[in-house]
Amino acid sequence: MMILDGKATSKAIQEEIKEIVAIRMASGQKRPHLAAVIVGDNPASRSYVGHKIKACEFVGFDSSLIELPENIRQDELIDEVQALNDDQAIDGFIVQLPLPDHIDAQAVLEAVAPEKDVDGFHPINAGKLSLGIPSYLPATPAGILEMLDRYAIETAGKHAVILGRSSIVGTPMALLLSRNASPGNCTVTICHSRTQNLAEITRTADILIAAIGKPHFVTSDMIKPGAVVIDVGINRIEDSTKKSGFRLTGDVDFDAVVESASAITPVPGGVGPMTIAMLLKNTLQART
Amino acid sequence: MMILDGKATSKAIQEEIKEIVAIRMASGQKRPHLAAVIVGDNPASRSYVGHKIKACEFVGFDSSLIELPENIRQDELIDEVQALNDDQAIDGFIVQLPLPDHIDAQAVLEAVAPEKDVDGFHPINAGKLSLGIPSYLPATPAGILEMLDRYAIETAGKHAVILGRSSIVGTPMALLLSRNASPGNCTVTICHSRTQNLAEITRTADILIAAIGKPHFVTSDMIKPGAVVIDVGINRIEDSTKKSGFRLTGDVDFDAVVESASAITPVPGGVGPMTIAMLLKNTLQART
Repeated sequence: MMILDGKATSKAIQEEIKEIVAIRMASGQKRPHLAAVIVGDNPASRSYVGHKIKACEFVGFDSSLIELPENIRQDELIDEVQALNDDQAIDGFIVQLPLPDHIDAQAVLEAVAPEKDVDGFHPINAGKLSLGIPSYLPATPAGILEMLDRYAIETAGKHAVILGRSSIVGTPMALLLSRNASPGNCTVTICHSRTQNLAEITRTADILIAAIGKPHFVTSDMIKPGAVVIDVGINRIEDSTKKSGFRLTGDVDFDAVVESASAITPVPGGVGPMTIAMLLKNTLQART
Repeated sequence: MMILDGKATSKAIQEEIKEIVAIRMASGQKRPHLAAVIVGDNPASRSYVGHKIKACEFVGFDSSLIELPENIRQDELIDEVQALNDDQAIDGFIVQLPLPDHIDAQAVLEAVAPEKDVDGFHPINAGKLSLGIPSYLPATPAGILEMLDRYAIETAGKHAVILGRSSIVGTPMALLLSRNASPGNCTVTICHSRTQNLAEITRTADILIAAIGKPHFVTSDMIKPGAVVIDVGINRIEDSTKKSGFRLTGDVDFDAVVESASAITPVPGGVGPMTIAMLLKNTLQART
């Protein structure tokens, strides 16, 4: 059984990016610059954005954090997005989700210039992904592909079962794993809250990807022996023994499933760090 | 067992559209206008485009057929597309595929203004589909949804197995059937040329959609009794008893499968006519 160490893999990718940045600097090119927009004080969002900014520092990117108040109007937020679109210094930027309820997140994401949309959330980038045209890939599914690739996990002809159909993880993951590419060429099944006989389906999975946001939802009886299990869940559950009062746990009952899986990602330290590495990769490509 | 009569259903939709056009005319609005661009002399393409133009006449749309020579240069073709984008009289238009090999079809499709892209092939429309945002849906998968809906075939919680991952049928079909909508909410499995144990998978399908372009590929042993079988294939096979020298046949071995299916589309007269109806529906929406 193999633990898919997302932390170490992410670090390795970040070292590679750092080297590319150093080479670019030595040849007098521009330093990549990622900006992040954060609205309000959601602690999880602040933590994610903090990790991204720290990773920028590590690889030698410039970074900017644009902090906006919870009560910002939608048109003001879109003005901020336009300013970043127009700012020649910024190669790529993200708008950290979720946004407050009074803001139409889709309108904000569509305001991002597609060529600076390093999250891959703009419809034109989602469409290119769907059509198999090169584009910025959303960081979480891209990170999973990269991990499968680096651990040399065979995907062609395998049955991948995806739990969750969100537009940022489940759906693009299904598109990427089903396409004629490597990694790829999986037979893909998309499951969700309306799926019947779920365990029967997951037990046919050679590769199981859990992205539903329910702690310990995937139990050992749902796994085919030898399956590769990828846990996208990052759930905060109360834990009075922790200083923060909570700990992070995945969608998979790791301790039970680890016995029968051939490979598994831990939480934390699995998919999460890969996501950051892929965001940096997209930003590196964004330089024009 | 129920034959899903695409011809009659398409006719019914066209009657509805005809009525809407008549009402618009009576209130002094503009008559919808669909244009079709065809390059070269592919007989199947000519036949498809001819059906589309004829359907426009039936419902009361204006139509234009732009016939271009096989040896047109790509930049000349894109100029034609731009002219249609700029032409206020044209509400929507299609570029009939396939295009000659010397032309980059993707570049041509991306030149179509998204708001006139009634085939739904532009990346921004494909992206909206993937993200669940209203957009022009590609006509074939939209026609299948419409048929399932009009025949009141329950889809929620059902297992839909799709044979084929093309960007115009298999992939958008998977996205549409998996989303949280009605019809929709299927557990969806995408199969393709690299799928292993295909018959084992198709035998678990409540709804089986064949879109692989191989005559009579789906045989009766691949069907679960009671399944709904949708045949997207339009294959020309030689037939010396026909004046044309060929006949059309689907991807499904109809005569054998009809025994065990609960509902099935014939070829011809199934999905094909629905495609035309949905193109007209998109054009009706396109009016600005």
